[in-house]
Amino acid sequence: MDPTRDPVIDPARLWTTLTEISRFGATQGGGLDRLAAGDHDRDARDYLVAAAGDHTVDVDPVGNVFVTRQGTEPDLAPVLIGSHLDSQPKGGRFDGTYGVVAGLEVLRALDDAGVRTSRSIVLANWTNEEGARFSPSMLGSAVHTGRHDLADALSRTDAEGRTLGAELERIGYRGTGTGPRSVHRAFEAHIEQGPVLEAEGIDIGVVTGVAGLHWCDIVVRGRSGHAGTTPAADRQDALVAASRVVLALDQLTSQDPDLRVTVGELGVLPNSRNAIPGEVRLAVDLRHQDGAALDEVVAGLDALVTHAVGTDGTTASVETVLSQPPTVFDPGTVDLVRTTAERLGYSSTDLVSGAGHDSVHLAHVTRAGMIFIPCVGGVSHREDEDITPQWAAAGAAVLLHAALTAAREEDA
Amino acid sequence: MDPTRDPVIDPARLWTTLTEISRFGATQGGGLDRLAAGDHDRDARDYLVAAAGDHTVDVDPVGNVFVTRQGTEPDLAPVLIGSHLDSQPKGGRFDGTYGVVAGLEVLRALDDAGVRTSRSIVLANWTNEEGARFSPSMLGSAVHTGRHDLADALSRTDAEGRTLGAELERIGYRGTGTGPRSVHRAFEAHIEQGPVLEAEGIDIGVVTGVAGLHWCDIVVRGRSGHAGTTPAADRQDALVAASRVVLALDQLTSQDPDLRVTVGELGVLPNSRNAIPGEVRLAVDLRHQDGAALDEVVAGLDALVTHAVGTDGTTASVETVLSQPPTVFDPGTVDLVRTTAERLGYSSTDLVSGAGHDSVHLAHVTRAGMIFIPCVGGVSHREDEDITPQWAAAGAAVLLHAALTAAREEDA
Repeated sequence: MDPTRDPVIDPARLWTTLTEISRFGATQGGGLDRLAAGDHDRDARDYLVAAAGDHTVDVDPVGNVFVTRQGTEPDLAPVLIGSHLDSQPKGGRFDGTYGVVAGLEVLRALDDAGVRTSRSIVLANWTNEEGARFSPSMLGSAVHTGRHDLADALSRTDAEGRTLGAELERIGYRGTGTGPRSVHRAFEAHIEQGPVLEAEGIDIGVVTGVAGLHWCDIVVRGRSGHAGTTPAADRQDALVAASRVVLALDQLTSQDPDLRVTVGELGVLPNSRNAIPGEVRLAVDLRHQDGAALDEVVAGLDALVTHAVGTDGTTASVETVLSQPPTVFDPGTVDLVRTTAERLGYSSTDLVSGAGHDSVHLAHVTRAGMIFIPCVGGVSHREDEDITPQWAAAGAAVLLHAALTAAREEDA
Repeated sequence: MDPTRDPVIDPARLWTTLTEISRFGATQGGGLDRLAAGDHDRDARDYLVAAAGDHTVDVDPVGNVFVTRQGTEPDLAPVLIGSHLDSQPKGGRFDGTYGVVAGLEVLRALDDAGVRTSRSIVLANWTNEEGARFSPSMLGSAVHTGRHDLADALSRTDAEGRTLGAELERIGYRGTGTGPRSVHRAFEAHIEQGPVLEAEGIDIGVVTGVAGLHWCDIVVRGRSGHAGTTPAADRQDALVAASRVVLALDQLTSQDPDLRVTVGELGVLPNSRNAIPGEVRLAVDLRHQDGAALDEVVAGLDALVTHAVGTDGTTASVETVLSQPPTVFDPGTVDLVRTTAERLGYSSTDLVSGAGHDSVHLAHVTRAGMIFIPCVGGVSHREDEDITPQWAAAGAAVLLHAALTAAREEDA
């Protein structure tokens, strides 16, 4: 039917583009410091817009950028691909950026081959996915999918008190567009941010969903006192009790290796060498792909913490900060990723993402799926985050052919 | 021989004076915020100087204040009494201040009774004992005893960069005096800052010495990573390892109840809820009255920490910050305190101070001793630090009669 050549990814062009866009916000340590709506984010966005060539570029009020490769039947809901260009303060070059650049390579490959599709293919760059500058994370996709109020999003402030709205205005990315009103399928290519694919030598992770997440704060209260004068038997040392809580939480994973438990923040009061800690605050991150298993852990937290602090008089309380059930991606879209990888000769395995992604929001309004590629050592959110050109090309090829298939699908 | 009445402490006057001087730097929580060489410290010093009446007041270049009650034989080395008026930022009303006010009451009691002594009795208020504003602690007594360089002490800066010298100048307490050149005996009355006296219903603690102290920093290094994506088996969580170190240190006291172990500060990097801790720094305070026992604990620290971090790949290093051997007070002075308490009908027990005091420096140049009184719940360095008027009067009476005996002693 199609008189054109088969589209193919150009691995060299893909890698060059990744290299070029990494200049914007490059750190001395080889990573990226490209906070949302900052100067470097503007430069990376400008690069993307310039690379879009003749395709239509649309920017919405929260700064999401949409590059549309027009289909032959503009009334059909388009296929959405993409990710985000912002990074953590000392992040890596591929988290987010890879998905945008792979999407750009998809458009270029289709253009080069002269491929026509009935559905348009829209490449999206979502604003403030990392949440490192403005809270919460995944804000652009949340607004686009109607899951976060636009006015509230624009009023979010960074550490210096500047609003997202003012910063988008300043960098020229506070648009008036809407992006696609409805979407046929959405695909996001991304680095795994975990060690499985590399360790097992697998090309493609077929992402079946995103783990459920539970954030809570645990406050352990003891009694401060003089380090030199208070005998051990008279102490209620909040840090000693908190240490038992940390170990009890960590111990949970020995019973359930699919559970992720992290105490990422710990604050001590008064935090003076010669004062017995009187209060310790722990910020806890719990994740599980199985919502029921996560719920069970959460339900047991109070008892676990009470047991862990022991009987010396210290007390502890647990407060929920955020709770998100697991996301299960559309089985048809997941299957399309899996069969596309197979058809192209790539090895693949099903994975659940431990990290949140814009696709979590998209999954509420369309049939979303994700394509993972390996990353070295499973490392992400660090300057030494790394991938190989081969891994990058494999993921882009799966993205290309999955999106192409979807863009030629009839309405379901 | 002495035609005068027996001097006696006036408990009401002593308590009134303690109450009055607590106005300077009073906190809403009932404590004191009277940092060294600040406005409140100036006000408390002014109060002391006014209360000194006709006695000679002498201020040295580091701001130590000396009130001299002249003896009949000015060539004899005087007896020194006193403590410090500065406090922790949220400290109590009695730590330090009690010793100064008890000393003032001693002078008043001697004046009222018309007592004459061959030796002068000098009441000292030492500058910056707490070390809360300028580091190190016990700076005034260290300079006076030649154990810290004056110029260096004056150049010490607070958190805002102001020097101790400039601040003493500003509050009018950068003097040109010297204080006593040599001292016959020195006595410091102080709250116990521990629970023993109150718990056992004992009036007076006869302080035989000050515990040895070892400060070290322990750095635990793991590998940071994404909280959501890194499986438990691939983690090197520095906080989990550090928690094991905290518990292993705490466990040391179960073998030796005379050991004091405190991890008072803990800092996490990167300290973000969804990032696995990559590095944790612990500030450790170890004390023991027995220098050999303390040395043994210190010698075992590296092995303890290495064992505690375990075998998941995290590593740890220990660095000494400060090491002070125990102080043993002069047996004759200790005995004078003990027999004076006995003679006055007070119960007493020998104690080793866990906290440092100006008397540690004085013990290097004279026969020093300390008199402890109980404090409620053993609490100090807190706004709810408290004592009773009876406890205050008992300690002042022992101070009075011990100092009086010493002031009438022949040269040894």
